[in-house]
Amino acid sequence: MSIVAVGSVAFDSITTPSGSVQDVLGGAATYFALAASYFTQVRVVGVVGDDFTAQHEEVLKSHNIDTRGIEHAPGKTFRWGGQYLDNLNEAKTDYTELNVFENFQPRIPVEYMDSQFLFLANIHPTLQAAVRLEMKDVRLTGGDTMNFWINRTRKELGETLKLVNVLLINDNEVKMLSGEKSLPRGARKVLAMGPQALVVKHGEYGATIFFREGAFGVGTHPFRAPALPIEEVKDPTGAGDSFAGGFMGYIASQNEVNREVLKRALFYGGVMGSFAVECFGTERLQSLTRNEIDGRFQVFRELTHLG
Amino acid sequence: MSIVAVGSVAFDSITTPSGSVQDVLGGAATYFALAASYFTQVRVVGVVGDDFTAQHEEVLKSHNIDTRGIEHAPGKTFRWGGQYLDNLNEAKTDYTELNVFENFQPRIPVEYMDSQFLFLANIHPTLQAAVRLEMKDVRLTGGDTMNFWINRTRKELGETLKLVNVLLINDNEVKMLSGEKSLPRGARKVLAMGPQALVVKHGEYGATIFFREGAFGVGTHPFRAPALPIEEVKDPTGAGDSFAGGFMGYIASQNEVNREVLKRALFYGGVMGSFAVECFGTERLQSLTRNEIDGRFQVFRELTHLG
Repeated sequence: MSIVAVGSVAFDSITTPSGSVQDVLGGAATYFALAASYFTQVRVVGVVGDDFTAQHEEVLKSHNIDTRGIEHAPGKTFRWGGQYLDNLNEAKTDYTELNVFENFQPRIPVEYMDSQFLFLANIHPTLQAAVRLEMKDVRLTGGDTMNFWINRTRKELGETLKLVNVLLINDNEVKMLSGEKSLPRGARKVLAMGPQALVVKHGEYGATIFFREGAFGVGTHPFRAPALPIEEVKDPTGAGDSFAGGFMGYIASQNEVNREVLKRALFYGGVMGSFAVECFGTERLQSLTRNEIDGRFQVFRELTHLG
Repeated sequence: MSIVAVGSVAFDSITTPSGSVQDVLGGAATYFALAASYFTQVRVVGVVGDDFTAQHEEVLKSHNIDTRGIEHAPGKTFRWGGQYLDNLNEAKTDYTELNVFENFQPRIPVEYMDSQFLFLANIHPTLQAAVRLEMKDVRLTGGDTMNFWINRTRKELGETLKLVNVLLINDNEVKMLSGEKSLPRGARKVLAMGPQALVVKHGEYGATIFFREGAFGVGTHPFRAPALPIEEVKDPTGAGDSFAGGFMGYIASQNEVNREVLKRALFYGGVMGSFAVECFGTERLQSLTRNEIDGRFQVFRELTHLG
């Protein structure tokens, strides 16, 4: 089943201890769509400028990603520059040029309206909510957010969280959103804000999914998936969005959404995140095979399962 | 099979967001011994002062822990005071009074000499090495160390690492010891220093065991065990030593030491660490049952295993 993904398409300039790249294709929607494309059809909603060429679009199209929802606006595409020289877990931003993304108003093509899965990447919560309300046939919505929106638009974010089935954020964002230092308590508070499930991303340590009582199955037991101990993290940019792509893509490829599916999805999220960081930008996500993905899924299983 | 544990016995004063306690029984050997006592017989080697009463000793003896190797010296027992007010992952030390521990010279009672398992808690590496060399029948030695010894006694530590089969340290200690930021690379460098296996403790995110090629089985694939998302960490003191106790205790209770045993041991380490932090000091470790421990092992399994 297809997924609609709404979010940024960008050109990134990135420096890490392994090297640097200039103006490579990036953005949350791009990473998400490429990662999810190995599981199901993805339809992107975003905005780009004149500098986004047919060649860039072909990167997406060659993965059967529907680009009809990518609006071409006069001006330049969103650009971001950052470095991870001291700490691979946190980027130091050199510049953020919003450009055409500044006035982004997501427009959902009528051809996308039959999609039953939706991913709202990290954009203004009011835009996230509007998209969700417009797409009436959606069965499951995944969403992301960040410290900026938690601090500045908490009321609007509160409304959006009522519309999101699975929220995917990191440890710090759980703490900020809930005001709790304890992860299980923080998770419970976030779940009380709306989502049926909360995926907390722990970076190199994997991710934990917490369930609201009775949501997608019985009980409130969390589940934890690992991350792969990676020899050389070349570029952590987009790891979280690639995780979300693997997670949502796997869910959309299944007939039913239950806890077992969500647990496997958490593993596939980790798998796609682990591939993403192996090369700069989206390079590794562009050239995968489903065999490689399922092979790494097995590695994740062996990494965590007793005999 | 019995384990000899060499390390500190102490009185701790601890303040955390959940409260504070004064001069409670602690020390690496105490946490280790109590945690391991649910799996096998433990024999402690340490030193205490006049303030260590028969009642304190009874805490250990009531868990069938052999205390004949605890030397009673004139003076006061090692005392430590610390707080975790800002950060549950790192103690701020208020005071360290080494007292009788300052001139600790481990003496192994002749009755301990038939033990096949040995745990060298965090003491001077030269003392660790001497104990290991004295105990000629030992089949498997686990060891701990810390930043202090890595910085100040690197040469001596290097000699000790050649005698340790399984080293248990945390992420930062791997980085310091190896000079590598990448965990898999750092692990490989540490394994090249001597140990056949390296357990890296990730605090609230669990632990990973890395194997030297061919050690305890085939290949070099690591294995990761989770930690339990804990509602309220009342007191993190001793979590690492309790982890080591569960890990080594389970190994010593098995007939063979192979990779599957080491993987399960990693789970039992996490289980004992998760109990330790639920109450102040060793309180929770004093009152467990094997049923509770195996119940939590199942929770850890459900937390990580796909159906």
